[in-house]
Amino acid sequence: MKTNRAFYIGRFQPYQLGHHTVLQKIVDEVDEIVIGIGSAQRSHTMRDPFTAGERVMMVSRSLEELDTTFYVIPIMDMDWHAVWVSHVRSLTPPFNAVYSNNPLVIGLFSEAGIQVRRSPLYQRDEYSGTEIRRRMINDEKWEHLTTKAVAEVVKEVDGVQRLKNLSQSD
Amino acid sequence: MKTNRAFYIGRFQPYQLGHHTVLQKIVDEVDEIVIGIGSAQRSHTMRDPFTAGERVMMVSRSLEELDTTFYVIPIMDMDWHAVWVSHVRSLTPPFNAVYSNNPLVIGLFSEAGIQVRRSPLYQRDEYSGTEIRRRMINDEKWEHLTTKAVAEVVKEVDGVQRLKNLSQSD
Amino acid sequence: MKTNRAFYIGRFQPYQLGHHTVLQKIVDEVDEIVIGIGSAQRSHTMRDPFTAGERVMMVSRSLEELDTTFYVIPIMDMDWHAVWVSHVRSLTPPFNAVYSNNPLVIGLFSEAGIQVRRSPLYQRDEYSGTEIRRRMINDEKWEHLTTKAVAEVVKEVDGVQRLKNLSQSD
Amino acid sequence: MKTNRAFYIGRFQPYQLGHHTVLQKIVDEVDEIVIGIGSAQRSHTMRDPFTAGERVMMVSRSLEELDTTFYVIPIMDMDWHAVWVSHVRSLTPPFNAVYSNNPLVIGLFSEAGIQVRRSPLYQRDEYSGTEIRRRMINDEKWEHLTTKAVAEVVKEVDGVQRLKNLSQSD
Amino acid sequence: MKTNRAFYIGRFQPYQLGHHTVLQKIVDEVDEIVIGIGSAQRSHTMRDPFTAGERVMMVSRSLEELDTTFYVIPIMDMDWHAVWVSHVRSLTPPFNAVYSNNPLVIGLFSEAGIQVRRSPLYQRDEYSGTEIRRRMINDEKWEHLTTKAVAEVVKEVDGVQRLKNLSQSD
Amino acid sequence: MKTNRAFYIGRFQPYQLGHHTVLQKIVDEVDEIVIGIGSAQRSHTMRDPFTAGERVMMVSRSLEELDTTFYVIPIMDMDWHAVWVSHVRSLTPPFNAVYSNNPLVIGLFSEAGIQVRRSPLYQRDEYSGTEIRRRMINDEKWEHLTTKAVAEVVKEVDGVQRLKNLSQSD
Repeated sequence: MKTNRAFYIGRFQPYQLGHHTVLQKIVDEVDEIVIGIGSAQRSHTMRDPFTAGERVMMVSRSLEELDTTFYVIPIMDMDWHAVWVSHVRSLTPPFNAVYSNNPLVIGLFSEAGIQVRRSPLYQRDEYSGTEIRRRMINDEKWEHLTTKAVAEVVKEVDGVQRLKNLSQSD
Repeated sequence: MKTNRAFYIGRFQPYQLGHHTVLQKIVDEVDEIVIGIGSAQRSHTMRDPFTAGERVMMVSRSLEELDTTFYVIPIMDMDWHAVWVSHVRSLTPPFNAVYSNNPLVIGLFSEAGIQVRRSPLYQRDEYSGTEIRRRMINDEKWEHLTTKAVAEVVKEVDGVQRLKNLSQSD
Repeated sequence: MKTNRAFYIGRFQPYQLGHHTVLQKIVDEVDEIVIGIGSAQRSHTMRDPFTAGERVMMVSRSLEELDTTFYVIPIMDMDWHAVWVSHVRSLTPPFNAVYSNNPLVIGLFSEAGIQVRRSPLYQRDEYSGTEIRRRMINDEKWEHLTTKAVAEVVKEVDGVQRLKNLSQSD
Repeated sequence: MKTNRAFYIGRFQPYQLGHHTVLQKIVDEVDEIVIGIGSAQRSHTMRDPFTAGERVMMVSRSLEELDTTFYVIPIMDMDWHAVWVSHVRSLTPPFNAVYSNNPLVIGLFSEAGIQVRRSPLYQRDEYSGTEIRRRMINDEKWEHLTTKAVAEVVKEVDGVQRLKNLSQSD
Repeated sequence: MKTNRAFYIGRFQPYQLGHHTVLQKIVDEVDEIVIGIGSAQRSHTMRDPFTAGERVMMVSRSLEELDTTFYVIPIMDMDWHAVWVSHVRSLTPPFNAVYSNNPLVIGLFSEAGIQVRRSPLYQRDEYSGTEIRRRMINDEKWEHLTTKAVAEVVKEVDGVQRLKNLSQSD
Repeated sequence: MKTNRAFYIGRFQPYQLGHHTVLQKIVDEVDEIVIGIGSAQRSHTMRDPFTAGERVMMVSRSLEELDTTFYVIPIMDMDWHAVWVSHVRSLTPPFNAVYSNNPLVIGLFSEAGIQVRRSPLYQRDEYSGTEIRRRMINDEKWEHLTTKAVAEVVKEVDGVQRLKNLSQSD
């Protein structure tokens, strides 16, 4: 019997409970999951404060509590859409399905003949990286919007201070 | 107490028992290990038949049997040595030590102020990717030189046939 | 007698009757024409739905009805203007004139010592890629704004459906 | 009825009668042919003296005498084999078959699910770019080994002199 | 005694008296100064009209009147912040301090363990590249806002005319 | 009267008395000199141990004793010869002559319409980077083959030790 392996991609700036809920549901439907850390080259901006390596750690540790096999792979942006699916596939274990609600991702994988499934929904206004980053800068509570593992990683890399520094005006 | 995390890099074409022995020893000395899949962009040649994603799968599955936390990250070549350490660190969880016997890797990480430890040795004439690839092409037994997980991955991606095809002369 | 060869560049998303009118006029003034497919790396977005290869086909087939020798060459964007003219010239047959109304293109070729001629004008509000793409998404008639050849290419690659898919919101 | 379109790639340094014979045979089997100018970024070396644009001109003019529709597209090298097929396809009109005897090209297109046919053979010792370049440097006759169109292009770009200059020792 | 060497980066489109005042002050505090020409790949736009080479000349000649040792190095943009500091350091003589008021530059060098000092301030509304470029386009006096050396370079490369050409509408 | 500015390029691994003799002669023939640090991205190998920044420092300090205006600019390799001259010119002050004995450099600048002069000769067997690097590794005297400034830079960056480390076998 062939392994049922699915792909899911996000920027994860940072990984939060919305993503976690989605992955918990996907895990029930597949054998293994491949997570792409999108815009891997981006870090140290207010919108993308964390490095790919930091985000790998956030996702990997958060997924440890789910009983599944997973792979977490940084994916650099490529402003060449017709080549993007091959780029992803060269860096990841072979997968037979993609979960996404993004029209571009859906379109590119569909044209490449790969099955695309709608990603489970979550409350975007409540759980969002934007909101978490806003709270970090303003010294508001943010840990309840993400996993314990992410909070630990942010602390290990002194992420809140980095974000505050970047938010200073020139 | 801070996590003791180490970095180890290889081409893994394919991952074999020599690598596995080394990692088994390193695992005893650290809390977590970060594995870099070197020359990630290379595949489909006689010296580098497997894609980065296939090698991620080989390494990850082989390490599952060790009782440790690990991260497996594709690292593209960069013909710009002075920037290479930053490249690696941007894609990987933070680590405080590197295991290597390669003079360039040792030199670059040392200049960057990161501790480098000599990698445990193994019998290179017995366990080598070169030998395994030679055996694959010649229909000789090769599975005993690597892990069961690698043999499964090679089978899943039809790797022996790919190598044989590439070995045809023009 | 030396061949009188001219260069003309556009994004051609898609090629339409405005472009066609311009080229019909240029053809009368030169022996051969070199067409650059600009932003060749872009495709699969609402503004740039077609690949370079699809646009090569649109332009080549449309020009077949003109009695002239032409070359159609994809040109990737290069965010390094001082090198752009060399980039273009390395990929194209040698030309001795450029037709353009774009200040940057005019400036770069002029500084490189190449003759630039103003491109013949056409009615931009009537014939425009933007308008054609808008009509495609809204199931309005668009074929009369372009050549028969383009309509055939769009059909062959199922271009209207691609554009509609990309226009879905996330 | 769908168009039967095939792809054929070469370095064409320069295009010669061996290539021409092959293409004459392929033309009988397909409706349209897409020619890739390989290693498009290379020029001004003893092995690769001609630019992509010059080679586009050599091939296009030589094919004019065949009664077929063709497209000639520069293809830059990409040291990332797993992405190469997508790269080619993004720049070319859609094709349903590839003619090649190169194991790598055969392997990559086969894995992508595209039909590969063995390319017709020709006498490689007689017709070869290497031999033509050697003759150019040594002031021997070479024009009979290629098409009349190629000889004209070489003359237009003063190609023999370029090659002789490059052959001077430092 | 070790050399006290500092780094200062700007786009210098063009170099003006604000920059000059800042460097005059920094020169009093260090032995040698390394100037980075930022966004080196950009030129021939209304916001970035001058090439890196032209800006190297502007800065070098302006600094000749200060009695100090300086190095002027073009630095291309790199949309990969975690690697940027290494990029800069590979191209520049070793320095032990950075002068900057830019939060990103401050953050990146600080994380790399390099001392960052606030750059001396100057009147930004009076001395600015934006204002100088606006005046050039409108035939207003601009030479008093920059050094004599810059005015000479702009004249040598016919910079005002280039800017006026770029400001024409399509 | 226009400034007479010349370009000279080398790898300078390291800069030595052969280069110095050449530049002393060139300086007599021109007003200003632009030095390109070739293969700027290469460092930390046995053939190319020094970074571009270190080589900038070697050249700049050695030239301080000559009474001339000079610019020292890192130039990355570009495996795209037809674009190389533009690449160089975008990063350097405008020059009207090139000194070189390298056939490729001569050919590329000549085709671009720039005057090329044969570079003055020096005794290559006596003064060579290869010989200096060999001596460094073997603890032989090398300082007399280069300038005092280079010896100081090598000491500041601990260059001999770096080279010895790189020469260890794996």
